[in-house]
Amino acid sequence: LSKIIALITDFGIEDIYVGVMKGVISQINPQATIIDITHHIPPQNLYNANYSLVSAISYFPSDTIYVVVVDPGVGSKRKAIALHSPNNPYFIGPDNGLFTGILNQFPNIEARELTNQAYCRHGIVSKTFHGRDIFSPVAAHLASGVMFEHLGDLISLESLIRLPLPPYQVTPEGIIGIVQHIDHFGNIITTIPSDLVREKSWLVVMGEIQIPSQTNYSEVKEGELLSLISSDGWVEIAVNRGNAAERLQLKLGDSILIGKKE
Amino acid sequence: LSKIIALITDFGIEDIYVGVMKGVISQINPQATIIDITHHIPPQNLYNANYSLVSAISYFPSDTIYVVVVDPGVGSKRKAIALHSPNNPYFIGPDNGLFTGILNQFPNIEARELTNQAYCRHGIVSKTFHGRDIFSPVAAHLASGVMFEHLGDLISLESLIRLPLPPYQVTPEGIIGIVQHIDHFGNIITTIPSDLVREKSWLVVMGEIQIPSQTNYSEVKEGELLSLISSDGWVEIAVNRGNAAERLQLKLGDSILIGKKE
Amino acid sequence: LSKIIALITDFGIEDIYVGVMKGVISQINPQATIIDITHHIPPQNLYNANYSLVSAISYFPSDTIYVVVVDPGVGSKRKAIALHSPNNPYFIGPDNGLFTGILNQFPNIEARELTNQAYCRHGIVSKTFHGRDIFSPVAAHLASGVMFEHLGDLISLESLIRLPLPPYQVTPEGIIGIVQHIDHFGNIITTIPSDLVREKSWLVVMGEIQIPSQTNYSEVKEGELLSLISSDGWVEIAVNRGNAAERLQLKLGDSILIGKKE
Repeated sequence: LSKIIALITDFGIEDIYVGVMKGVISQINPQATIIDITHHIPPQNLYNANYSLVSAISYFPSDTIYVVVVDPGVGSKRKAIALHSPNNPYFIGPDNGLFTGILNQFPNIEARELTNQAYCRHGIVSKTFHGRDIFSPVAAHLASGVMFEHLGDLISLESLIRLPLPPYQVTPEGIIGIVQHIDHFGNIITTIPSDLVREKSWLVVMGEIQIPSQTNYSEVKEGELLSLISSDGWVEIAVNRGNAAERLQLKLGDSILIGKKE
Repeated sequence: LSKIIALITDFGIEDIYVGVMKGVISQINPQATIIDITHHIPPQNLYNANYSLVSAISYFPSDTIYVVVVDPGVGSKRKAIALHSPNNPYFIGPDNGLFTGILNQFPNIEARELTNQAYCRHGIVSKTFHGRDIFSPVAAHLASGVMFEHLGDLISLESLIRLPLPPYQVTPEGIIGIVQHIDHFGNIITTIPSDLVREKSWLVVMGEIQIPSQTNYSEVKEGELLSLISSDGWVEIAVNRGNAAERLQLKLGDSILIGKKE
Repeated sequence: LSKIIALITDFGIEDIYVGVMKGVISQINPQATIIDITHHIPPQNLYNANYSLVSAISYFPSDTIYVVVVDPGVGSKRKAIALHSPNNPYFIGPDNGLFTGILNQFPNIEARELTNQAYCRHGIVSKTFHGRDIFSPVAAHLASGVMFEHLGDLISLESLIRLPLPPYQVTPEGIIGIVQHIDHFGNIITTIPSDLVREKSWLVVMGEIQIPSQTNYSEVKEGELLSLISSDGWVEIAVNRGNAAERLQLKLGDSILIGKKE
């Protein structure tokens, strides 16, 4: 039974890039099951890719092979890597900070540099598209049963690039976070984790506007603002059947303050 | 042989939501074949979801499992349901009117409320994302051979929510319908069914503009307006190699009058 | 083992059209593996479809079945065709120039007109959607083992429509090409093939602006212009971590001049 290969990229779907990655996988392993997580990471946005990967992994089989390609440094000296530990997923992509959350979550993971040319595309690797020439073929070979140990040399976790992750801060006035994602509906996902708040106990404060917490969208009238716990565990701001990001004119990186309900 | 799971949602594909639904399915049934019908239902538009589902079903195997998630009432008291009758497809989603056309088309279908927690996500169900926590796992279990009867209690068809479907009207001046869909090319799909007209016998009347009917796009010159029967059986208005919705400044819900050719 | 079916269309993914093509394939061959190359060919743009197909084929298994549907003449007298030669891929679509590059690349390919109704959709073929009614069912039957010879009558290659392909010209001042594609990142792909230049030896000249060639994006500072060989083998113009098409205000069809570095 072949493992699942799950893809996260910033390639969009207008071009042939994602299709070509799947073609390369099918040349090596025609039976591979490929799932698109998203190809709409904002171009070159490592933070959003890290957020999307961390948010997705509990919903996939535990031996899934994640290929994450947001790779502005392709062709430079940045390393191509794979991460894995026994009974856990495989993560493949460039060493540029994409896997910061994964490294925090799996402290005993092993890292290997993808130095074994045998698992790259027929020994021909371009300087501009490693998603096609390295990461996809390596994933296809892993799905076909190649051992993680054979992909290349072990490298130390300390040597890997990590992002300064989007912060939150507990202050006397309340918890301060930032907008880390705005979804298709205009729902605003903050960097404030749900375990810092208790159900229905908080208030998002934006100058004159105070947005009380609820448990689901339908607890307020159509068109009204609410705050709630997002489906992936963050404090979220939404409008019932509407678009909160447009209403509040918020964008990625903006500050959010939450206080306690009186 | 696993049944096919076909998805219709308003989630878009920028976020991880659709990928996560597929991940959840693959946790339960790694062999499932999943087909995306569309994830671009306009947000919260139950009419468009109903239209897309009804338009799609004759093109899929008869035992397909349709998962339809346009769900503004998620987390409220609206029911989660599945519909099925012997030798017919399975339909899974919220009870909010999405399945109005299906209920008309399959008058002897059975409805069950998805009360059996065993087929939901590991007994953990959020208040904001039942596509992930209820509808996808139930579909995966059905694809794996779980019996429809085991999903939950039978409920009466009379108890289900139905939409007032987009209307058409036969009047002395002609047939009046509305715009029910505008496609990627700007083709305008009306609510007027093709069996109300005979081939090449009608005229769309928009004030001064009269648009004669044809059998295919190429019967008029490039850039000219025409009307024809859409590929899914409705009166359509188009421009040969152009965008009719932009040309005529029409949008969803606008009225359309069709008369007879003299 | 079923062959892979790879799709290129201008249908977009907002509507049910692509999903319905996959449904039709699954009715005939539920085991078929379908890969989306792209559905975002600009509407009715035969040049871009030809470019995308030619750019993709070396990354797929050699027996892949390509279904290419950009079909403004659907329902008219334009032929429906399939192309194939032993040990090579299958190409299915309308005879309107889409396969110009394929005909150049496979001079000994055979062409058949899809006249055998047995492999079309249940004998019911609309005048507006042959992607669903002819091309997808034929692909599904080929994937199931139907012989190419059974699809219909042989027709001569000379009878097929060919596009005047986007040109380049070698002149005393340099090589003149045009913009043939702009990708999701705003990278500009020209019609100038990489074998006309030597690594790092050229200069894109746009009035006052001179853009030197590099081997990868990271060789210039963030925000700076560069030229390089694209991942599919054309002279490309890019901005490191930025959008070259926006910066230079270039669009499809614009002229590009490249000269030698002094």
